[in-house]
Amino acid sequence: MSLTIGVDVGGTKVAAGVVDEYGKIIESVRRPTPSASPGQTEQVIAEAVTDLRGRHQVTAVGLGAAGFVDESRATIRFAPNLAWRDEPLRQRIEGLVGLPVVVENDANASAWAEVRFGAARGHENVIFVAVGTGIGAGIVLDGKLYRGRWGMAGEPGHVRVVPDGRPCGCGNRGCWEQYASGKALVAEAREQARRSPAAAAWLLRLAGGNPEGITGAQVTRAAREGDPAAIGCFQTVGGWLGQGLADLADILDPACFVIGGGVSDAGELLVGPARTAFSQRLTGRSYREQAPIRLAELGADAGLVGAADLARGAGPGLADGSALAAGY
Amino acid sequence: MSLTIGVDVGGTKVAAGVVDEYGKIIESVRRPTPSASPGQTEQVIAEAVTDLRGRHQVTAVGLGAAGFVDESRATIRFAPNLAWRDEPLRQRIEGLVGLPVVVENDANASAWAEVRFGAARGHENVIFVAVGTGIGAGIVLDGKLYRGRWGMAGEPGHVRVVPDGRPCGCGNRGCWEQYASGKALVAEAREQARRSPAAAAWLLRLAGGNPEGITGAQVTRAAREGDPAAIGCFQTVGGWLGQGLADLADILDPACFVIGGGVSDAGELLVGPARTAFSQRLTGRSYREQAPIRLAELGADAGLVGAADLARGAGPGLADGSALAAGY
Repeated sequence: MSLTIGVDVGGTKVAAGVVDEYGKIIESVRRPTPSASPGQTEQVIAEAVTDLRGRHQVTAVGLGAAGFVDESRATIRFAPNLAWRDEPLRQRIEGLVGLPVVVENDANASAWAEVRFGAARGHENVIFVAVGTGIGAGIVLDGKLYRGRWGMAGEPGHVRVVPDGRPCGCGNRGCWEQYASGKALVAEAREQARRSPAAAAWLLRLAGGNPEGITGAQVTRAAREGDPAAIGCFQTVGGWLGQGLADLADILDPACFVIGGGVSDAGELLVGPARTAFSQRLTGRSYREQAPIRLAELGADAGLVGAADLARGAGPGLADGSALAAGY
Repeated sequence: MSLTIGVDVGGTKVAAGVVDEYGKIIESVRRPTPSASPGQTEQVIAEAVTDLRGRHQVTAVGLGAAGFVDESRATIRFAPNLAWRDEPLRQRIEGLVGLPVVVENDANASAWAEVRFGAARGHENVIFVAVGTGIGAGIVLDGKLYRGRWGMAGEPGHVRVVPDGRPCGCGNRGCWEQYASGKALVAEAREQARRSPAAAAWLLRLAGGNPEGITGAQVTRAAREGDPAAIGCFQTVGGWLGQGLADLADILDPACFVIGGGVSDAGELLVGPARTAFSQRLTGRSYREQAPIRLAELGADAGLVGAADLARGAGPGLADGSALAAGY
């Protein structure tokens, strides 16, 4: 049995797990992330790994983190929610734990997990879109994770879908993630509640009467219970999602799409409207196959499981042999 | 010396050439395309090939055609400017000429030529954009032409860049090719001439005084001669081009972009503004390398040269062995 450790490094917590070659988590641990300090975060990662390897024979470690990871899977160029700038994370963690380490963008890791063990099993060309607060994505082409020339590929959340549109945290305007994310869902619901309190009564009741208090979880709950206003919010956001998937199909013609991330917990409420928009917008739709849009299957574990599996695959293939050269 | 024939099948003419392994055209012929009749077009292709192989020892034929080509590179699913619908072009031409044939989308063939012999030599991840009347494209990833699951990849010209925008021939609205193509350049110039005849006097003089008579070649000529109105048209269209390239970089992070097609004859007039917009819009531009935007080097021969080279590469690799099985 071949075991590796996958680590999901989030803004608030580190989740680490021992994963077998079938994608099964044997044991996992969680610790809070001291995100203000790169060194402390690395210490927490190392402690979690050391803890787990005390009880399991593991061969490598995969780290998934929200951020721009370089093409050698060693350095975090920039992480919006963690204090890393050009951080040589692979080297640091290898030094602390004495195991080969690969670093991967968290959405890339999740995409890989869904292709290996989840909703896209058996497909060679897959686009995974994580609809959370923003939009993350991972692209698998010809059976391999596609990273691009400098490791920056797979960020369709920042494609401009509306000229002079809503401002985005990235500094531009009109990015897809401002229209097809959890943030957009909440903004839509709050605007409805401000504009037409009567129509949004259900949502307002859940939020204690304050439009600005409406959360994504409340919109999902209200929509599940049949509230037309909440369902309308999902239709709007799902429509933007489906349009963006049609745009991606123009470029990459994938075999299937997988939708994950927190907002995908709403299931058909989100992907139903996305499928409708996709079918209506796909270029040349009468002359081509339409890629199915599936819900992710691995939930919040996807990043950890994918990172672990990528570490396994990378063992002998580390481009510069750094782990081997270091005498592991 | 290994020779193959490349054929560029356009709406008005068929260009066929014998090409060596360095991408050099040894001899070429041209014939008009009877585009209304699929059978007659195939006859013209076969005659051109037979003509050339009478004088050269060739091993295979590559056909580049504007249209959606299936993933097995055998069938034209749909060609907007030719009368083909689900046409088994490979089988038909193989039957007529007795040589292995591969069929490729013309922009894909041009992209391949630029990567092998032109502006993107030595790069593994390249996006080629042909700015002509519309926008064609070809994507080379990890050193291979990327076709997608069903062969439909590489059509960014139909990504929606403006919600409810200009109508497009594809049936949708707001497609990139309505903003960043030769058609857009001409539309921009004509609108300026209608709105502000004084500012557009130079363009109007070239067009004999009629705004609707302004052509793309005239806009290029006026811009080259320093006409501010014509230069402004290129700035607008080049800006849309650069924005779209930044969007593609978010998704694919290529090593470089190559801009070809008829409008690229204008050179820096087009790619200068594209580079500026690209630099201003690229997500996370402070934390990543910026892919260079280059002008294509092979001009109108790119499709023919690329198709010939793809035929060479495909010889032994025909997925279903049809050519070999047929006894060639």
